[in-house]
Amino acid sequence: MNDYTPRPEDKFSFGIWTVGWQGVDVFGPGTREPMPAERAVRKLAELGAYGVNFHDNDVFAFEASAAERDERIAAFRKALDETGLAVTTATTNLFSHPIFKDGAFTSNDRDVRRFALRKVMDNLDLAAELGAEIYVCWGGREGAESGASKDVRVALDRYKEAFDVLGQYVSDQGYALRFAIEPKPNEPRGDILLPTVGHALAFIERLERPELVGVNPEVGHEEMAGLNYAHGLAQALWQGKLYHIDLNGQNGPRYDQDLRFGAGNARGAFWVVDLIDGSDYDGPIHFDFKPPRTEDDEGVWESARACMRNWLILREKVRAFRADPEVADALRAARVDELATPTLGDGEGWQAVRDFTPDVDALAARGAAFERLDQLALEHLYGVR
Amino acid sequence: MNDYTPRPEDKFSFGIWTVGWQGVDVFGPGTREPMPAERAVRKLAELGAYGVNFHDNDVFAFEASAAERDERIAAFRKALDETGLAVTTATTNLFSHPIFKDGAFTSNDRDVRRFALRKVMDNLDLAAELGAEIYVCWGGREGAESGASKDVRVALDRYKEAFDVLGQYVSDQGYALRFAIEPKPNEPRGDILLPTVGHALAFIERLERPELVGVNPEVGHEEMAGLNYAHGLAQALWQGKLYHIDLNGQNGPRYDQDLRFGAGNARGAFWVVDLIDGSDYDGPIHFDFKPPRTEDDEGVWESARACMRNWLILREKVRAFRADPEVADALRAARVDELATPTLGDGEGWQAVRDFTPDVDALAARGAAFERLDQLALEHLYGVR
Amino acid sequence: MNDYTPRPEDKFSFGIWTVGWQGVDVFGPGTREPMPAERAVRKLAELGAYGVNFHDNDVFAFEASAAERDERIAAFRKALDETGLAVTTATTNLFSHPIFKDGAFTSNDRDVRRFALRKVMDNLDLAAELGAEIYVCWGGREGAESGASKDVRVALDRYKEAFDVLGQYVSDQGYALRFAIEPKPNEPRGDILLPTVGHALAFIERLERPELVGVNPEVGHEEMAGLNYAHGLAQALWQGKLYHIDLNGQNGPRYDQDLRFGAGNARGAFWVVDLIDGSDYDGPIHFDFKPPRTEDDEGVWESARACMRNWLILREKVRAFRADPEVADALRAARVDELATPTLGDGEGWQAVRDFTPDVDALAARGAAFERLDQLALEHLYGVR
Amino acid sequence: MNDYTPRPEDKFSFGIWTVGWQGVDVFGPGTREPMPAERAVRKLAELGAYGVNFHDNDVFAFEASAAERDERIAAFRKALDETGLAVTTATTNLFSHPIFKDGAFTSNDRDVRRFALRKVMDNLDLAAELGAEIYVCWGGREGAESGASKDVRVALDRYKEAFDVLGQYVSDQGYALRFAIEPKPNEPRGDILLPTVGHALAFIERLERPELVGVNPEVGHEEMAGLNYAHGLAQALWQGKLYHIDLNGQNGPRYDQDLRFGAGNARGAFWVVDLIDGSDYDGPIHFDFKPPRTEDDEGVWESARACMRNWLILREKVRAFRADPEVADALRAARVDELATPTLGDGEGWQAVRDFTPDVDALAARGAAFERLDQLALEHLYGVR
Repeated sequence: MNDYTPRPEDKFSFGIWTVGWQGVDVFGPGTREPMPAERAVRKLAELGAYGVNFHDNDVFAFEASAAERDERIAAFRKALDETGLAVTTATTNLFSHPIFKDGAFTSNDRDVRRFALRKVMDNLDLAAELGAEIYVCWGGREGAESGASKDVRVALDRYKEAFDVLGQYVSDQGYALRFAIEPKPNEPRGDILLPTVGHALAFIERLERPELVGVNPEVGHEEMAGLNYAHGLAQALWQGKLYHIDLNGQNGPRYDQDLRFGAGNARGAFWVVDLIDGSDYDGPIHFDFKPPRTEDDEGVWESARACMRNWLILREKVRAFRADPEVADALRAARVDELATPTLGDGEGWQAVRDFTPDVDALAARGAAFERLDQLALEHLYGVR
Repeated sequence: MNDYTPRPEDKFSFGIWTVGWQGVDVFGPGTREPMPAERAVRKLAELGAYGVNFHDNDVFAFEASAAERDERIAAFRKALDETGLAVTTATTNLFSHPIFKDGAFTSNDRDVRRFALRKVMDNLDLAAELGAEIYVCWGGREGAESGASKDVRVALDRYKEAFDVLGQYVSDQGYALRFAIEPKPNEPRGDILLPTVGHALAFIERLERPELVGVNPEVGHEEMAGLNYAHGLAQALWQGKLYHIDLNGQNGPRYDQDLRFGAGNARGAFWVVDLIDGSDYDGPIHFDFKPPRTEDDEGVWESARACMRNWLILREKVRAFRADPEVADALRAARVDELATPTLGDGEGWQAVRDFTPDVDALAARGAAFERLDQLALEHLYGVR
Repeated sequence: MNDYTPRPEDKFSFGIWTVGWQGVDVFGPGTREPMPAERAVRKLAELGAYGVNFHDNDVFAFEASAAERDERIAAFRKALDETGLAVTTATTNLFSHPIFKDGAFTSNDRDVRRFALRKVMDNLDLAAELGAEIYVCWGGREGAESGASKDVRVALDRYKEAFDVLGQYVSDQGYALRFAIEPKPNEPRGDILLPTVGHALAFIERLERPELVGVNPEVGHEEMAGLNYAHGLAQALWQGKLYHIDLNGQNGPRYDQDLRFGAGNARGAFWVVDLIDGSDYDGPIHFDFKPPRTEDDEGVWESARACMRNWLILREKVRAFRADPEVADALRAARVDELATPTLGDGEGWQAVRDFTPDVDALAARGAAFERLDQLALEHLYGVR
Repeated sequence: MNDYTPRPEDKFSFGIWTVGWQGVDVFGPGTREPMPAERAVRKLAELGAYGVNFHDNDVFAFEASAAERDERIAAFRKALDETGLAVTTATTNLFSHPIFKDGAFTSNDRDVRRFALRKVMDNLDLAAELGAEIYVCWGGREGAESGASKDVRVALDRYKEAFDVLGQYVSDQGYALRFAIEPKPNEPRGDILLPTVGHALAFIERLERPELVGVNPEVGHEEMAGLNYAHGLAQALWQGKLYHIDLNGQNGPRYDQDLRFGAGNARGAFWVVDLIDGSDYDGPIHFDFKPPRTEDDEGVWESARACMRNWLILREKVRAFRADPEVADALRAARVDELATPTLGDGEGWQAVRDFTPDVDALAARGAAFERLDQLALEHLYGVR
């Protein structure tokens, strides 16, 4: 039996801030000690991770002096070097400091916007130096609690301006970095700009360098809007824009739970692994979760280990599902393959169907046979086939 | 005082199926008599509407013979002629008949897809003949309840194919019709393709004729996903794609309530009117609601009349809000105008902010002054200013 | 390996209306033929069900003459007799007919309320005659879309009056029937009275005969409010009021999906089976689902069969989970057993803890060890332990 | 015109922690300075508040020495004395300190439970001394993120034990204090025990001293579950258990927004004021909100002032609504008064309706006339009648 041990080729990665989360929430302070980035790196390497993602302020404090910054980066880099962990991805913290309380790229305050650009450029340099290929942009404070405080069209102008400027910067520096926008519908703002995968995909099309920008959909963020995460990933793939994924767990519309991957919507997770495993996505399998505030240090690593293990378990299952002859039969019965046949035949134009008159009653009577197929999938999830 | 009487220049329009809804739901049959389209037209004209939108099967039955179809269309057209009501918009019913139980443009069954194209072409002809300028496409059955039954990427290929074929048809016929996709997250399918305004906007960018296709966002559909409808409209405007709007009322994530406009999220409605009234949108102010099943014929017209009245009341309020000097002052205090100033000055590149070092403490300490502004807006909604 | 074949002692039951649902929804008519109650009985018996639940109008039409009613009941009874299926439960359709558009027991219209009582009494007679022990009351139309239309306190007076009258009726007739209220938050009404298990449990305490009335929680109805269904069942058990359960599947706050049991929230289903299997609940394991509108007759039976199969699969899993020594160890580590020790010791009063001064830092530092435990549960769900 | 100035008889009160919230959330630290309780008292008095509610740790820190505690309480009391503000309510912070990470009364850790009881008793003494009449219990950490970590039935045993012990304490001390349980569905725990008003009302019935315990429903907490807050209040009143109310604003299922009263669901707020103003509830009109993190000190007081102002504005409106003759007419047309007539007449038993045979077609055809009534209410909200 598979032992579900992570291997480098699985490309598992974690945000430094995930295992490092101390447990601060609106209702109480942290329950765990601060974790230096280098400790996170070493422990994640032990668990079998391949890489990490980091915010600038996961490594050094916002207020760090130049010397402190250098010292912290050196310690981080040393741990990376010694463990061989890759920096697959980097990102900027544009949401914690009070200066960003009304956003960064779309703050009403122009000086905040200018400072935000500078803070990103600082970390783009570090990201490039550390070999990151993807630069995630989560605009968690870009939004509003009330209607008049933010002119959304103007805010989108500023949002676009930020990506255009940063795209120019990356090009001018010759960095091999692409951006991945991470959508979220709300929390910590009442309504966040670019609330879903769809909104971000549409926005990208209006940028100066759309080829540099894709999306980083997160399980919980889409499910907070009641949306099907796998469907969102599929559309991002279809549009050629799935640059990164953030895996975790959520139980529907409520606060952002950031449960470990596999917890939350178990059936959803099955279809996510099925989709990614069957696609040409080759970025990291990235976990962006928070070990619950109830856990101590040991619990932190239990939950991190479980994220990878659950991916491997599910990967085994989806492959068994796709290899099952009864599934193949059920897929055919459900005409899933027929959807791949274009509606118009080779060389046909609209004229070919202008007067198309099928046997309506016969078509109406045909069952779609989806229940049988879905039950087979569920039994693969259960491990009873 | 304003008497809130609808005028033609208000461009109020209604779906024939709104006032004609008999009240059938999952738990019971209709409570009202069928309403011929011509009756809907005459009554809506009496109430002050400017135009209507219709599904083919609002006018004639799916099973109608050619003679019956002609007779029903003639009656409809006669009512239009006599009342002067415009057909602003048309659409196809691709969701009621059992043939469409797994969708129309993305049904796994190719014959269904071919028939769906034909059904749309039939009604495009009628729409063009009746002078409609917008053709709404709500793909309510395009979706799935289970993961394996629909390959979403392949389904999006077929969805694109349908719009490409229909775009060709409209071009070949020389029709002055543009399409407006109406997104919805779920119901009647477990998950519907193109679930939000964002997803539809992104999809459009991959079509052969994106210039022919925009969106028709509906209040309730976005609010079912917990999204801010006015924000969705703003992004659609920003992307140049707001072709039509569907106004009604909803109380957050739950079944599609289709309450009259104004009922449901009253503050949201205020910001919708503020946005549209302050934009260059010049399509119809369209209501897509359902008079509750509790109402008789009189209640149907009460609710239809109230939709228009509520728009006019709110329009008066948002204009008063925008004209209020204290609001102007509060907007400045909240630096809403400052967001319109580009982050980089004329001629500046990223270099201008590469080392930008503001007084962080001072910026962090600045209050955003949004509460005062929002309270002024609320008091305009209340009518106490 | 277990073959997951239903046996009588599993006490699986189905609503006649579940497999009989034709697929009518707000957006289209049925896709399947009507199914006489006797056909449902015979097919469910073939699949291995133990019993059925029925609405009066599942067996005979609302408008049936006395002769038609007798004929339909005779056919139903004949099927029951021949198959040996039990009538575990019965209920009244107080929601389909237009007369009930504003509710039955709480309709503003007194004649409707009086008629509703009579309709229930009619079916109580039949239920008693057929040996039902539980009488479910789903008040799906008891509610409102708007604030002034229903005085909720007065409506609760009428709701109480109905249960008091019906309790008297059952007592006077000597029927061995108890009532089970089925809560639902909304749909088909905007807000339904007694929206959750909690509200129903509280209401029961104010009835004249609380001992005759319990609850019938449904998976989807609680999950539509984002509530944890197993937690709701647990509180109902704790209050001594879990008289019946309605099992199905749902994907969070949205329209009432009524998916087959096991579909929807798979992890939730695991904990439901764990709770019920470990409790003294001995009523039927009842399925109240709707085969999706996409399915034909064969799909209907696939989905019904799968409901039972999924229960048996999950039952096997939860028993393995509870028997796993590593789980026992993890439960101890998580101090789950310690919660069973009363906070005050034998004979202690509040004085014993009036000045209790623990080592706060030590307690604060203790991890709860919940992640390890939850991962073990998940691996039992996956079938990899 | 009304100037909406708060008066003592309006009985407006605030939590010390509301205006004192510094803005810490999961994604960032506070944006405002700490506010000593005495400053909150003085400022609230200036704004016209009548009273306050406080957690023990709003006044003094968890780690405070006895001397520090005394000093902080003295400062608090001095401000109360000088301003004349009442302490209407008190409560215990059983959720911030890491010791309570798995709950207080239902922590798996018995020492935590014992300490929690002691912490409450400490503050009950202070509450009684300061003249509070209501003691709020919000069990925000009583819950779970995963299924096996909490045996809900056992947890309810412990929850009951806590209330029984504290009821004994209050009785033994002769305190004129009653408890008010504040339900919440989730956040900061994945699922919280007693998630809605209904669950709390039901739980109370199983306590040793149910007469000492009622509920404190909060707008946002019920609306996070998609429930109608006014309906919840109405049921609490009906059950004789509405001891306190927590007013604020929320936009449906998402994180706990704690907007100022009036923001969020404006129509819901209208019906809340209508219900309370027309009831015999005579407790404080209490605001439990959080000034958004974007605001500075001035914004804090703007939002606090607006809470009271919005209540007064809405109170004026609901009184006008109830006094409007056209509304009276619409209420009659909607048969709202008829619901107050018992279904059975004086002296009637079930026999009176056993064969009741109304004119079903006539009843079915009657419209409920709810739309007209609701539109009148909306126009009162708008202030255009």
